Amino acid sequence: MTRIDGRKFNELRKIEIVTDFVKFPEGSVLISCGNTKVLCCASVEYFAPKHVEEGTGWVTAEYSMLPRANRERSRRDISKLKLSGRSAEIQRLIGRSLRAAVDLSLLPGLTITVDCDVLQGDGGTRTASITGGFVALALACKKLVDEGVLIRNPVKHYVAAISAGIVDEQPMLDLCYEEDSSAQVDLNCVMDDDDCLIEIQGTGEGRAFTLKEQQELVELCRKGIRELMAMQRAILEG
Amino acid sequence: MTRIDGRKFNELRKIEIVTDFVKFPEGSVLISCGNTKVLCCASVEYFAPKHVEEGTGWVTAEYSMLPRANRERSRRDISKLKLSGRSAEIQRLIGRSLRAAVDLSLLPGLTITVDCDVLQGDGGTRTASITGGFVALALACKKLVDEGVLIRNPVKHYVAAISAGIVDEQPMLDLCYEEDSSAQVDLNCVMDDDDCLIEIQGTGEGRAFTLKEQQELVELCRKGIRELMAMQRAILEG
Amino acid sequence: MTRIDGRKFNELRKIEIVTDFVKFPEGSVLISCGNTKVLCCASVEYFAPKHVEEGTGWVTAEYSMLPRANRERSRRDISKLKLSGRSAEIQRLIGRSLRAAVDLSLLPGLTITVDCDVLQGDGGTRTASITGGFVALALACKKLVDEGVLIRNPVKHYVAAISAGIVDEQPMLDLCYEEDSSAQVDLNCVMDDDDCLIEIQGTGEGRAFTLKEQQELVELCRKGIRELMAMQRAILEG
Amino acid sequence: MTRIDGRKFNELRKIEIVTDFVKFPEGSVLISCGNTKVLCCASVEYFAPKHVEEGTGWVTAEYSMLPRANRERSRRDISKLKLSGRSAEIQRLIGRSLRAAVDLSLLPGLTITVDCDVLQGDGGTRTASITGGFVALALACKKLVDEGVLIRNPVKHYVAAISAGIVDEQPMLDLCYEEDSSAQVDLNCVMDDDDCLIEIQGTGEGRAFTLKEQQELVELCRKGIRELMAMQRAILEG
Amino acid sequence: MTRIDGRKFNELRKIEIVTDFVKFPEGSVLISCGNTKVLCCASVEYFAPKHVEEGTGWVTAEYSMLPRANRERSRRDISKLKLSGRSAEIQRLIGRSLRAAVDLSLLPGLTITVDCDVLQGDGGTRTASITGGFVALALACKKLVDEGVLIRNPVKHYVAAISAGIVDEQPMLDLCYEEDSSAQVDLNCVMDDDDCLIEIQGTGEGRAFTLKEQQELVELCRKGIRELMAMQRAILEG
Amino acid sequence: MTRIDGRKFNELRKIEIVTDFVKFPEGSVLISCGNTKVLCCASVEYFAPKHVEEGTGWVTAEYSMLPRANRERSRRDISKLKLSGRSAEIQRLIGRSLRAAVDLSLLPGLTITVDCDVLQGDGGTRTASITGGFVALALACKKLVDEGVLIRNPVKHYVAAISAGIVDEQPMLDLCYEEDSSAQVDLNCVMDDDDCLIEIQGTGEGRAFTLKEQQELVELCRKGIRELMAMQRAILEG
Repeated sequence: MTRIDGRKFNELRKIEIVTDFVKFPEGSVLISCGNTKVLCCASVEYFAPKHVEEGTGWVTAEYSMLPRANRERSRRDISKLKLSGRSAEIQRLIGRSLRAAVDLSLLPGLTITVDCDVLQGDGGTRTASITGGFVALALACKKLVDEGVLIRNPVKHYVAAISAGIVDEQPMLDLCYEEDSSAQVDLNCVMDDDDCLIEIQGTGEGRAFTLKEQQELVELCRKGIRELMAMQRAILEG
Repeated sequence: MTRIDGRKFNELRKIEIVTDFVKFPEGSVLISCGNTKVLCCASVEYFAPKHVEEGTGWVTAEYSMLPRANRERSRRDISKLKLSGRSAEIQRLIGRSLRAAVDLSLLPGLTITVDCDVLQGDGGTRTASITGGFVALALACKKLVDEGVLIRNPVKHYVAAISAGIVDEQPMLDLCYEEDSSAQVDLNCVMDDDDCLIEIQGTGEGRAFTLKEQQELVELCRKGIRELMAMQRAILEG
Repeated sequence: MTRIDGRKFNELRKIEIVTDFVKFPEGSVLISCGNTKVLCCASVEYFAPKHVEEGTGWVTAEYSMLPRANRERSRRDISKLKLSGRSAEIQRLIGRSLRAAVDLSLLPGLTITVDCDVLQGDGGTRTASITGGFVALALACKKLVDEGVLIRNPVKHYVAAISAGIVDEQPMLDLCYEEDSSAQVDLNCVMDDDDCLIEIQGTGEGRAFTLKEQQELVELCRKGIRELMAMQRAILEG
Repeated sequence: MTRIDGRKFNELRKIEIVTDFVKFPEGSVLISCGNTKVLCCASVEYFAPKHVEEGTGWVTAEYSMLPRANRERSRRDISKLKLSGRSAEIQRLIGRSLRAAVDLSLLPGLTITVDCDVLQGDGGTRTASITGGFVALALACKKLVDEGVLIRNPVKHYVAAISAGIVDEQPMLDLCYEEDSSAQVDLNCVMDDDDCLIEIQGTGEGRAFTLKEQQELVELCRKGIRELMAMQRAILEG
Repeated sequence: MTRIDGRKFNELRKIEIVTDFVKFPEGSVLISCGNTKVLCCASVEYFAPKHVEEGTGWVTAEYSMLPRANRERSRRDISKLKLSGRSAEIQRLIGRSLRAAVDLSLLPGLTITVDCDVLQGDGGTRTASITGGFVALALACKKLVDEGVLIRNPVKHYVAAISAGIVDEQPMLDLCYEEDSSAQVDLNCVMDDDDCLIEIQGTGEGRAFTLKEQQELVELCRKGIRELMAMQRAILEG
Repeated sequence: MTRIDGRKFNELRKIEIVTDFVKFPEGSVLISCGNTKVLCCASVEYFAPKHVEEGTGWVTAEYSMLPRANRERSRRDISKLKLSGRSAEIQRLIGRSLRAAVDLSLLPGLTITVDCDVLQGDGGTRTASITGGFVALALACKKLVDEGVLIRNPVKHYVAAISAGIVDEQPMLDLCYEEDSSAQVDLNCVMDDDDCLIEIQGTGEGRAFTLKEQQELVELCRKGIRELMAMQRAILEG
């Protein structure tokens, strides 16, 4: 089997992570996964939200697509006065995933917001946002330590994410838009550097899927995430 | 191990499904899962949304909690002018799950909206909405066939959902609110009557989880869903 | 003259008031007036709004219909980003009516919000909300006294409400939906246990009405309200 | 008893109705009732709303206060993104009242919107809006007849409105702001030229009120409305 | 060349500035410029916004058109839930212009909001709002001094505004609606009593314009503004 | 005098215009002016808005800043449910400027929307949006001609924009953020390739400015715009 873009079934698209594409955020990366491009900016603010326990901090995320990130222009949320349900769902997922990377008790009185703005969308924008958003978050944390704001680095785990799916009855890793559009099953995994799951979300689009298929897709994701983490590590520790 | 409410680790809460609690919707049920109560109403409208292929129909869902469904009163969405992100996420899940139950090409020019309004929330409201919402949807479809609007019943699969989680390192089925609040891992499955997954969503709340744990939780859900489907079947075919 | 449902011109529909249908609110009732069903939940919160005099409290109400409470499904307010004008008008009426029942100076620093959610609407939802809402409010006040939060019960009057109207030139009590739809005149009274008016709202829908007709309708309401108060009393003092 | 502004208990404030204060609307008046000033503009548009029966038309109203119409500045609705509940209630009342003045079947395919914008508020703005709004509506209808758009004038009744209330246990007509602020009972009547009620709305603010008191207040309103109609007639037929 | 309304190319429309048209604001004027009528109300509030330096105050403006201020009725902003872009732009301009008139350090802890509500629009509403708004602001400041709230009057400059434009290749001052509709170039100037510019905004509507044309239009505006300031002075110092 | 970044008073910042940074829009550029970076995307849609004359088309623009485009993070418009007044003003300016570049009668039945999203803001974002937006628009038009959708290219003029200001009494071209923050006068010009003005907007921030100063600033802008147009030309015709 050959995929539409010539990849093997278990092969990631070309990943590129550019740091400091913009200069104001405490941490920022422009991540490209094939033609998907997401600008991830981590901003530190010196307050913690009300719902957070005294003496700890918070990490949250926002997700949005530029109007012409896609094949067709879509209206901005503000012109409809509604955050799209899809964006609401995705930014909650990113926030939960990134909180799993840090020890919030080491961020006392701070909020870090990771803005993920999709400049170009070609499938896999939510997982790219998590993978890139983690690097932006880690850069911001490093900066806080370097500047003496924090004594210990709150990052306790690497976190990365990828999708896998079944297209034409064939499991494959990291679906691009065209594969995603015709996928029968679509599954995203967020994992840490212990090979453990933080989030799993799977959807039967064209048909339901067996428990065995589900396991195969998780295994594919596990492979991809290991590769993504190697790239994250090269940037952050390189 | 004994659970807070005396159940065994793989035991569902008491489930009750009352049909025709309200009389105007084409299909309606009041489903109780322990103390969780959700009113599920399926409404038939004679148009199909624009994005739907000519000659087919649509099934969608809306989810909301009454202000005092919970331990504390929460403000209505309308007073904040924002649909809560959590509701947006849940109603998208319910909609996808229920669409997997029907053959949309057998609903030409129709939209069925399943409104899931939580009257009392004690954990598991999204899975109760799917399990109860399926019955409401099936009742509405049956009515359309009985009235001659549809020739063939578009329901092709039973669909039900349940959660499982890890609490105090112990996997257990169908978490109630108190268990859910302290769960380390929380995982929801939506399955059909072929024992296949339609949706799976798992989250590590307190910690990440291994692939093996994930499988155990899915197995627990599978057991619960079989029991739920027996109840659905008793009502619809009884 | 016989009415559509066989009642006499001055006869109420069958009234049922179920307490504790849901368990979290400090006071709650499910009131049925014929086919109209309203869930009334009184929630106590430990703050008073800014506009309230120091040392006193507040009672307020919110009113909403579930999307399929009626013969046709209506869109949720949140999807239109607007509270319906009708709901705004009705919840202001309920709030004023229930405040007349209590001595606000005996609720220092507290707010009680009575949520009236119509599960099924068949005419008379606003008056059912007041009649049922009063019972929920009184139950909440009783609880506050029982728990020692309040020393004296702030309820100073029973409050109930009913409609009367002119249909086919015939005055009648407690219009159901079908009567309401073709009513020439529609009038609601809210009264206390001294036979005094708290609110009166009358509308000529098909034609204007004489002062004499207005008095007849008020008298019909007075009769109905006495009967409703007997039921309220049976529940609260029974 | 002398009133704060020297009036007798059954005396209206000074009423002034200036036509053509603005020149674009098909009908417009600036009505002053004491210090209350409302600009009422009737606009004709060549469409009928969907809910209206084929071949007929519609009359509707909108009500708003300028930010500094009152003793203190209030924020505009748009800055809160919410139509105030009070405005929603009042504009529904004005709309119902003005529709009672016309035969909608004589306005085929037309909508007349009467905008009532309070420039200065000193009590009685809703009744001034109805009394002034009727004149604006009648002027617009006359213009439509004069221009040959309509063959018959759709106005079938004069309509005017006034308030009465109980202040310090004394019933009085046409409350100004200071009286209104301390009123025990406040009641508005909308009547036609047959001495019949179109709308009645009474509220016990400080206390409930007897049926007899209610009658007295209605009688006071009847007297005031007759005087208002004489002024309307002088302008429209003068 | 004769203009549509008989004016000379460098002639203002008839200007009328009526003070105290409404009585609650600390300063108010109804300004008419030909058929354009704007009610300008300056309201003093005893707080300063957060972004303002400690010990100083703020002046801001809001601008709105009544629905039937124009030839056709327009929907209210609140019914669209959006402040019109045009209003947003204009109220920012008015605010900047009026702040240039005062020394904010002499308004410690105060906010003055100038509401400009267009009752009738016939071209030049933004410049009329500035010219009239300045008088309302100056009246409010005078009142604060007279009442001893302020020791020194914070007004340091007179401020007025006017438009000029090119219509049929002819530069002219103070365009009325009909001229404005067919103008090739439209330019507004806000100036102070030193003959200096505070704001300049010019737009080529039908065609671009040379630097020389731009200067001619500014000169026309300068002439008109001198005349407007003479009127302002007569009212404020007369 | 030396400027903060070493430029001469009449020197532009380093300008870079990258085409095809994203691939879906019909035309797109990433323009950098010093540290200011704006992504400009022109999208073609096959409809014309209602207000447009039959047989012609429309060009419009939207402007937004990413949350962390600036030194401090700002909340997204959607979380406030309001388009910022500043964005509303700027996008209207961009739209008017770009419409001056094209003959709308040569875009029959088409709308081109130019989205200007500021990735990094360091002063001059609105003028960068116009200069870059023009290139995106021209690329889109060229594509429409190349694909045979349009027979003649509707672009009739080059359009570019720049700011000039007075800082410490010194006129200078193309203010960066630090200069802009302390500018006494700020003036933007939009010009075409005939050396004519399309838009001019000048504001006295710290003080008013003379007509002579205004001329000087316009001259500075003219010089800058000629240089910008040379760059535009090199890209579009190179």
